[in-house]
Amino acid sequence: MLKPEIHDPQGEAIAGACRRLGFGQVAGVRQGKRFEIELTEPASAERIGQLAAELLANPVIEEFTVHPG
Amino acid sequence: MLKPEIHDPQGEAIAGACRRLGFGQVAGVRQGKRFEIELTEPASAERIGQLAAELLANPVIEEFTVHPG
Repeated sequence: MLKPEIHDPQGEAIAGACRRLGFGQVAGVRQGKRFEIELTEPASAERIGQLAAELLANPVIEEFTVHPG
Repeated sequence: MLKPEIHDPQGEAIAGACRRLGFGQVAGVRQGKRFEIELTEPASAERIGQLAAELLANPVIEEFTVHPG
């Protein structure tokens, strides 16, 4: 997900569309990415965090969480 | 996320890059979207599922899950 302090115009456009199209209780939307990673062998959460930080996310503007499947 | 039967070339490219760049245990990657929705008042999971199905996902090629925040 984009860091909270980073402006998300795409999310704002989606929130506006939701309100116009009948979902008036939508106060805000933020859009991010989700990756499902399949491994050939178990890896530590730290190692997967390293992969996410180096290859999947842009740590300048994005933050991420790792959830075991 | 794309349905399992839908080809995900972007995820495959990411998986290849992971393997080339030192994460050889990556067997596959699938990329999807994630939306964080802020509401002005509580809504049922069914109502949020309706929002996701009608406005956020493309049910022809994508599936989704709803998680309360």
